[in-house]
Amino acid sequence: MKHELDYFFHPDGVAVLGASENQRTGGFHILRNVLGGYTGRVYPVNPRYAELLGVKCYPDIQSIPDTFECLIYFIPARFILDTIKEAAKKGVRAIIIESAGFAEVGSQGQALQQEAVALANSLGIRLWGPNCMGYLDGHTRNVFSFMYTDKWKTLMKPGDVSLIVQSGMLSAGFLMSVLERDNIGISKVCSIGNKCDVNEIDLLDYFCGDSETGAVGCYLESIVDGKKFLQIVKNTQKPIVVLKSGRSEHGKKAAMSHTASLAGNTAVQAGAFKQAGVVQVIDLYELIDTVKAFSYIKNYRPDKGVALMTFSGGAGIVTTDLMADYSIPLANLSDDTLQAVQKLYPSWMGASHPLDLWPAVEQNGLDAVYTATVEALMSDTSVDSIIVECFASRYYDPAFFKDIGNMMRTHKKPVVLWLVGEKDVVENYKMHAESSGIPVFGEIGRCIQIIQALRFHFSKRGKM
Amino acid sequence: MKHELDYFFHPDGVAVLGASENQRTGGFHILRNVLGGYTGRVYPVNPRYAELLGVKCYPDIQSIPDTFECLIYFIPARFILDTIKEAAKKGVRAIIIESAGFAEVGSQGQALQQEAVALANSLGIRLWGPNCMGYLDGHTRNVFSFMYTDKWKTLMKPGDVSLIVQSGMLSAGFLMSVLERDNIGISKVCSIGNKCDVNEIDLLDYFCGDSETGAVGCYLESIVDGKKFLQIVKNTQKPIVVLKSGRSEHGKKAAMSHTASLAGNTAVQAGAFKQAGVVQVIDLYELIDTVKAFSYIKNYRPDKGVALMTFSGGAGIVTTDLMADYSIPLANLSDDTLQAVQKLYPSWMGASHPLDLWPAVEQNGLDAVYTATVEALMSDTSVDSIIVECFASRYYDPAFFKDIGNMMRTHKKPVVLWLVGEKDVVENYKMHAESSGIPVFGEIGRCIQIIQALRFHFSKRGKM
Repeated sequence: MKHELDYFFHPDGVAVLGASENQRTGGFHILRNVLGGYTGRVYPVNPRYAELLGVKCYPDIQSIPDTFECLIYFIPARFILDTIKEAAKKGVRAIIIESAGFAEVGSQGQALQQEAVALANSLGIRLWGPNCMGYLDGHTRNVFSFMYTDKWKTLMKPGDVSLIVQSGMLSAGFLMSVLERDNIGISKVCSIGNKCDVNEIDLLDYFCGDSETGAVGCYLESIVDGKKFLQIVKNTQKPIVVLKSGRSEHGKKAAMSHTASLAGNTAVQAGAFKQAGVVQVIDLYELIDTVKAFSYIKNYRPDKGVALMTFSGGAGIVTTDLMADYSIPLANLSDDTLQAVQKLYPSWMGASHPLDLWPAVEQNGLDAVYTATVEALMSDTSVDSIIVECFASRYYDPAFFKDIGNMMRTHKKPVVLWLVGEKDVVENYKMHAESSGIPVFGEIGRCIQIIQALRFHFSKRGKM
Repeated sequence: MKHELDYFFHPDGVAVLGASENQRTGGFHILRNVLGGYTGRVYPVNPRYAELLGVKCYPDIQSIPDTFECLIYFIPARFILDTIKEAAKKGVRAIIIESAGFAEVGSQGQALQQEAVALANSLGIRLWGPNCMGYLDGHTRNVFSFMYTDKWKTLMKPGDVSLIVQSGMLSAGFLMSVLERDNIGISKVCSIGNKCDVNEIDLLDYFCGDSETGAVGCYLESIVDGKKFLQIVKNTQKPIVVLKSGRSEHGKKAAMSHTASLAGNTAVQAGAFKQAGVVQVIDLYELIDTVKAFSYIKNYRPDKGVALMTFSGGAGIVTTDLMADYSIPLANLSDDTLQAVQKLYPSWMGASHPLDLWPAVEQNGLDAVYTATVEALMSDTSVDSIIVECFASRYYDPAFFKDIGNMMRTHKKPVVLWLVGEKDVVENYKMHAESSGIPVFGEIGRCIQIIQALRFHFSKRGKM
């Protein structure tokens, strides 16, 4: 049997209300995006056109000759009630309202929104939005969103990261930034806007049972049912990373005006989040980097210390300081490990932790030194994970990351990587590392935040 | 009269001891780099070659037919004392020791290093290093360093940022990352290594009087004379940004092994830094981004609040929260400003701060809305600076940043910019913004750190 939300994610037939040929309107982009990925029947609706993008266009819903399950709404708010009634007659079970002009504009819009939900639910229809950008699915390639670019066609790769985002732009413009910047595979990216009906609880619950979702990231301005939200997080083994905005007084006020959200008590929330195992973040790329880490790292027992390999004594010290800021233990390396590294060094250099490998690299080559050092650390029982800092040198082939990735999976000890060097060389190293399963991050501080998040989540999971 | 350090920065004649034709050795790269920029006489020294890179090579120092002022040392440590004596006979006043094998390898190296300093100083010679990568100068284009790339030829632009770096890799490999990533103009980048003689105090003092230096960034593992360091910072109007590593116990230990540095008491240092007006940072790109900001922003009176323009309600709330974390005041916008923005909005949208401009952009275009809003904020007496968050849309020409840059300078209210969107469009917007004098940063949190740093420094300067 179809789950209620499957009428959104796997609908049999979709109508686009407000489709347009004007490229500066969302109605054009929704239609172009739907036609670009979704493989079922598509019905553009707009009385001004007989055809749009090569597809027959209908003047209104009742003219559509067949039933269909999902409707995307992109016309002014005032038509919503009539639309729901017409849609019900066509068998619609799911309406995505991407238009604004509802609860976020005041009491009148709020009343209209409430009326729409009551009417829709009485007719067996779930509402998504309003004031949102719909969703993208990396597997079905459904893009039910008015995002103004179709770069998703090349950028969007299937993966296990699902996002729940209570802000339109953050799921579209920002998402394209993310997909170009990061090697991140997408399951479902959902923009929920005012979440008048379908909300973060529905989606989170759905994703916990979704075999295509391995990690969930949320940007939320409010949580409709805190108790239920925490219960879901407590009971799942999947990492749930949350950026909850409206932590400050000004932020709360802004959240109210943005999506009519009551942000709640910050201190209470933070404590409850932590207890339930919510991985908390406070900035946008931090959210993305953190879910990305969970999409790469599937196994970790954070019961020992973190080892640190670097190409620069200075970077190693900065990293050590940042680890101390987060109370992350630096591994107490075994004598065997230090001796193994010592063998790679010139005679004047003594091995100590953090391992500054550059003198060894000059003597034995980057690939040999990094592979041998990771191998030693993987066998060291004092080490549960490794931060690798690497200078991307064009004199060495980054194919050696494949061996490191394999060791990481065999020993279930995560490796996170920070790269420095010339842009094109760094890009090449990054590509090799990430396709070997080793996630790369842009700042030392971010690597530390990631290690902290991994330790937090896998500690919780170890107790389940 | 020549300043002592001018023998390093503006020498009449340079010898390269340990020059080589082997591209995998530093001796090759030092010579190539020196020949690629420095316009004076260059003398490679190595008994194995008659000529190197098209230049006559000398078997030893005494064979060089003329006097010269600077010598770059890249042969094993044990030859240092003889070299100093020979160099003195040739009129050398400055020796840059880039080899390792001195104090950082133990007591024997420590003794040799001390002996070298005593001998050199008695002969009127200053020593730079050892265990360092020399320096780069964006104006003279002297690159007296063994960095393995000559990409500096295209990447290095003259500017007013000087760096003092107590770590080799951070001034070479990392610097190339920085130059490709950031629109940052360079005065002098100095790698001081073990700083046996020329140290951060000498350089900081020199830079305070250097007309080509407007902002100084330091990566330091220790400070040779804390009192003097603070005195210099207190007395200069130039911003001094410092990443002092070895803040933690493990970090201190690592600093000792890296450059034989005693890192000092962290809490005491942080307090003294703050009091003297040192701009403190804790991560590497944070250091770079912060000096970059000071290179762009020359005037600021941080006596009111910060205004926030965004393309995304969500990003605006996240920013507001982060501002609260740093106790940065959100400006209390005047009615005039809110009315000016209201005119740009569709009727359903009410203007409130943070200003979520996307609905206005859809109605009036990105360029018109952003320019008009900045104009209103510049005239608002409650605003002392602006954080601008912009979706880089290929439908609009980013030439409008020129007007915003001009307003920024006229009103002396800094603007910092965060961009989101497709990579190539973001790059184009960034190029336009930065050539208009508006610095761009990669994360919201970084914009906030930057605003905080600007407020801190210009508050100090306002009291001078």
